[in-house]
Amino acid sequence: MLVLVGMGLWDERDISCKGLELVRRADEVYVEFYTSKLMGTTKDRLEEFLGRKVTEVGRSDLEENCRWLIERAKERDIVILVPGDPAIATTHSALMLEAIKRDVKVRIVHSSSIVNAICGLTGLHNYRFGKSATVSYPYAGKVSKTPVNVIRQNLSIDAHTILFLDLHPKPMTIGEAIEIMEKADNSILDLFGVGIARAGSEEPFVRCDRLRELKKVDFGPPLHILVILAKTLHFMEFECLRYFASAPKELEELVA
Amino acid sequence: MLVLVGMGLWDERDISCKGLELVRRADEVYVEFYTSKLMGTTKDRLEEFLGRKVTEVGRSDLEENCRWLIERAKERDIVILVPGDPAIATTHSALMLEAIKRDVKVRIVHSSSIVNAICGLTGLHNYRFGKSATVSYPYAGKVSKTPVNVIRQNLSIDAHTILFLDLHPKPMTIGEAIEIMEKADNSILDLFGVGIARAGSEEPFVRCDRLRELKKVDFGPPLHILVILAKTLHFMEFECLRYFASAPKELEELVA
Repeated sequence: MLVLVGMGLWDERDISCKGLELVRRADEVYVEFYTSKLMGTTKDRLEEFLGRKVTEVGRSDLEENCRWLIERAKERDIVILVPGDPAIATTHSALMLEAIKRDVKVRIVHSSSIVNAICGLTGLHNYRFGKSATVSYPYAGKVSKTPVNVIRQNLSIDAHTILFLDLHPKPMTIGEAIEIMEKADNSILDLFGVGIARAGSEEPFVRCDRLRELKKVDFGPPLHILVILAKTLHFMEFECLRYFASAPKELEELVA
Repeated sequence: MLVLVGMGLWDERDISCKGLELVRRADEVYVEFYTSKLMGTTKDRLEEFLGRKVTEVGRSDLEENCRWLIERAKERDIVILVPGDPAIATTHSALMLEAIKRDVKVRIVHSSSIVNAICGLTGLHNYRFGKSATVSYPYAGKVSKTPVNVIRQNLSIDAHTILFLDLHPKPMTIGEAIEIMEKADNSILDLFGVGIARAGSEEPFVRCDRLRELKKVDFGPPLHILVILAKTLHFMEFECLRYFASAPKELEELVA
């Protein structure tokens, strides 16, 4: 059996009790830090907490060279530890599909993901989020228009947008993400956004303002994530952003 | 301090290790089953696993009469256990805001929520979900048009729609939800959807088909949730739905 166990948002203790039991009973335990990172711990601390030796696997072990992991899971109980929730990154659903096609049983043990944390940290209502997108580093000098297009689509149905920030070669900052997107469409600078740093930690930093202002804010160490607000806000969303994210008073103009 | 601790999706062992530690250290522990339910456990099993006496609070304790809980949290460490993730239901963000306004420190310990589980169980890509909505029981004979309107909005930007099903007075089934929505707009019966029962359990049931077919499927015991598919599917989403959700071959017409 192949068991994908979510490790949650921040440190080694964000894994569920169920996940911990399965790790302790597994024949072999692997971990990947390709789809995301746990900033609040190290591999050593993780191994100590779990009471197990853990082998790190990389991108290609999860993607084009995943066959060896799947073969091992035919005979043995294999756990792969995953930052966040195993269902959020498409890498994991592709791996699950490969395993099921080869008659390997798959189980997921869920955990918290950044998508949940954003609602808690901002007070934005979960049901009002639209599609999400990733802001990538320019490739061969070219900036992807996808994030800006997704923002526009979501604005057309009055929905918020979550923007995941590229992790490779290093975690992108909120300021860098805004600078990249403004190259695709500089009118985005007038939009209101919420920047979030270190979600899931005991010291998250959350700030709401127009993107042209957020660009100048020092959000501190990673990971960072950025939300672009819908055209309108529910009054409770506005109030939460005032209290949780030091939003400027002029944000009130968005309250529907 | 007021600590909202997520209990995850199914049973008492879905809480995180961090959440369990905070429960054990708390001065008082409460639980609510108003915003959702944990179908895989009972209050007795929960108390035994946590090693704590737990007091159940109801809707009004979380909403209009929340002041007493907040007052207690001024002096003592109060944990409120919440099914799923504490950040998903608007009831919790409103409670947090009330507490912060009264200078009570608030902490959230996240957990898995149905939003994550849906991606894992269906293979649908998280970034392609649009706004979500709740299908409510008709009130005074009137059927809300909101779910159908949200589906239309999401289709306009080619996004999937999560439909939460009413829990009160009893958990709504997928069949009931489709019957209620078809009264608002019977053209929805032609759309493809994915019905999911008992997410987070070891025996979830997932089935993809047109709504007119899903309506006849017996999904078994609750909780149920329903996803309406976007206009198009990524090829990997199609493949996952074929393997994970017994989707009919004709679904392939949606592959972009």
